[in-house]
Amino acid sequence: MSAWSIEWVESSNGVTDAKGFRASGVSCDIRGKSNGQLDIGMVYSSSPCSVAGTFTSNRVKAAPVLLDQSRVRSGRPVHGVIANSGNANACTGDEGYANAEAQVALAEGLSGRTGGSFLVCSTGRIGRQMPMDKVKKGIHAAWESLGDDVSHGHAFSQCILTSDTRPKRCGVILRNGAREVRIAACAKGAGMIRPDMATMLAFVVTDLGCEQADLQMLLSEAVEDSFNSITVDGDMSTNDTVLLLANGSSGVSLDAADIELRSAFLKGLSTVCERLAYLIVGDGEKISKVVTVKIVGAPDRESARKVAYSIAHSALVKSSWAGSDPNWGRVLCAAGYSGLPVKESDMSMYYDACPVVKNGRVLDENISQWREIVSKKEFSIVLDVGMGHAEARLLASDLTPEYIEFNMHE
Amino acid sequence: MSAWSIEWVESSNGVTDAKGFRASGVSCDIRGKSNGQLDIGMVYSSSPCSVAGTFTSNRVKAAPVLLDQSRVRSGRPVHGVIANSGNANACTGDEGYANAEAQVALAEGLSGRTGGSFLVCSTGRIGRQMPMDKVKKGIHAAWESLGDDVSHGHAFSQCILTSDTRPKRCGVILRNGAREVRIAACAKGAGMIRPDMATMLAFVVTDLGCEQADLQMLLSEAVEDSFNSITVDGDMSTNDTVLLLANGSSGVSLDAADIELRSAFLKGLSTVCERLAYLIVGDGEKISKVVTVKIVGAPDRESARKVAYSIAHSALVKSSWAGSDPNWGRVLCAAGYSGLPVKESDMSMYYDACPVVKNGRVLDENISQWREIVSKKEFSIVLDVGMGHAEARLLASDLTPEYIEFNMHE
Repeated sequence: MSAWSIEWVESSNGVTDAKGFRASGVSCDIRGKSNGQLDIGMVYSSSPCSVAGTFTSNRVKAAPVLLDQSRVRSGRPVHGVIANSGNANACTGDEGYANAEAQVALAEGLSGRTGGSFLVCSTGRIGRQMPMDKVKKGIHAAWESLGDDVSHGHAFSQCILTSDTRPKRCGVILRNGAREVRIAACAKGAGMIRPDMATMLAFVVTDLGCEQADLQMLLSEAVEDSFNSITVDGDMSTNDTVLLLANGSSGVSLDAADIELRSAFLKGLSTVCERLAYLIVGDGEKISKVVTVKIVGAPDRESARKVAYSIAHSALVKSSWAGSDPNWGRVLCAAGYSGLPVKESDMSMYYDACPVVKNGRVLDENISQWREIVSKKEFSIVLDVGMGHAEARLLASDLTPEYIEFNMHE
Repeated sequence: MSAWSIEWVESSNGVTDAKGFRASGVSCDIRGKSNGQLDIGMVYSSSPCSVAGTFTSNRVKAAPVLLDQSRVRSGRPVHGVIANSGNANACTGDEGYANAEAQVALAEGLSGRTGGSFLVCSTGRIGRQMPMDKVKKGIHAAWESLGDDVSHGHAFSQCILTSDTRPKRCGVILRNGAREVRIAACAKGAGMIRPDMATMLAFVVTDLGCEQADLQMLLSEAVEDSFNSITVDGDMSTNDTVLLLANGSSGVSLDAADIELRSAFLKGLSTVCERLAYLIVGDGEKISKVVTVKIVGAPDRESARKVAYSIAHSALVKSSWAGSDPNWGRVLCAAGYSGLPVKESDMSMYYDACPVVKNGRVLDENISQWREIVSKKEFSIVLDVGMGHAEARLLASDLTPEYIEFNMHE
């Protein structure tokens, strides 16, 4: 048994829960609605942070993603991140990139830090230049407002929201005797969520000390079964970013030889990422259900994921979830066009633990139980494709008429 | 210039327009609603027909698809096809296959033809066994009702419909002096339409004489830019089938050396297939718009198709079409995750002929024209990815709240 215990932070304040991190969220009217909505903020640590990041694999990347990627790759420590909602600074060309650079340069000037010590994340409307006059005022105000009270963590978690209906915060504490390490985080999600991260921003901070290369390895592992295993509408955004900053303020540092701490930290980090991923799907645009699609009996993990996505992206399957209709035929049909050479007579399927299909034969006698299960707010579909021993799990949502209405006009 | 002219048949009666083909459509209450809806029918030629077919690439294939595939592959001539709606005979295992065999055996018995001379197509609900007592009565009635009047062609085109709002018929006449060849057809479509043919049945008949191998080659070529280039909801069904029967009743046969006739016939066949494909998309479940997605400047055709599908399957793009919102950002974004390594600064885009993006730069000054174009019932999106000279064209539809509502409960 590990000497490290892991516990949830009760009612997390977000990023300010970790030692040495301050935050802010203010309004600078990026949307031009003059309604005081928080739309720009900052996370800041006066101690330098190692930083790791994972980014959208969309070939059309927003300016802030391009800037952050190059800074994370440089391996240089950072002190903070600026984030805004209302404008994604995507499809904005050279002017957009220059604007992203101007944002970080301004924050660097205010903090007296050298170039390269800030990152920037943007989310919102694509294809419009940032209103830089407003944004510059916003960055000034965000810098002035930094603090580590509950209100600061909350404000930052709010300023990044777009069509989210609520902020998403969580954190864990790792304890081993007198030693204590915190991982604290917040995220925004909602539309365009699919594997490989889509219009999703997550800010994870920790007061652990950790080398950058190591931190990147840990983050990449943690996102695999969390942010990279969710889907709402199958679209993948230009802006998705997960950042992990480690400032060492806990006094505990990750030593390569300390297997126990490493394992506890990875577990804590995975727990935080999985929780945020769950909160993002559960708050997906106009969704009514969260469905776990689990594929077992696949020849390999990649094939299992392929089948899971084929099911979770089917408009017909997702519509039937919205209607609480146990339409197992559409599920098998979507598996059939996944690209994996499945055989009808080798497939078995379950709603939660209730058998639906056994080797291609339908177990109609269970139909009232199926209806009960698929009427719940959360349920699982388990599909055994009978081809091997690999599996994959995907967190998905239904597709509702309200989703389409919501996205018909931007 | 070809000696062959091609003209449309005015107000086509469907398959009975070609010489020597009789048809019928009757009611046998497969849906159990006792409402007299036509749900089973037959196409029949007393002269033996060469037959070609293309079928769904879904690995989960309905029983009739499996049966037809093996019969088409056998190369033996056929005399007719039975078709029904209301039950797809898919995911029905061995019992389903035996039922499909019983259907063709019954028709063969009634017509006095040898085994193997009938094909069968089914569409409708997945996962339920065919109500064989009703179906057998239906086949008897369909056999008794065969004829070549306008009412017979119409009845057949109606008995195959599911969520279609109207029958889909068309035909062409090829003329060269006294020689005349007819191609006549009907189809059903609606939901689950995507490339590689999905819940789509098309019956094309011709009174040309043609060797089977040749006929298959011609059909495969004709479906490529028609049935294989359409998408409604991205789902691919278990039952999609296009059949082409050639009975030689025109007295004109396709001789390998007759390049002019071959070329005219292929053109006529392509015209018919494209028209049916257009009718299917235009009658897609609860759609409000037909959008042509054309990708140019691709390194190869397959890449161009990949980008086109990525755009045409994006729930966000399709929602914006439904809302007449010229959201070009979502289009570029979907191109970005298509798998092709597109570069933002190399992409140019048009609504119809109106420039939207030029080398990644937005031409905002045209916005009122964009709005006008995307508010039409039909428009085009042309995306130049600036990577080569290949192109592809896809006929797609929008995604409406009504589509989801319609598919929430089966």
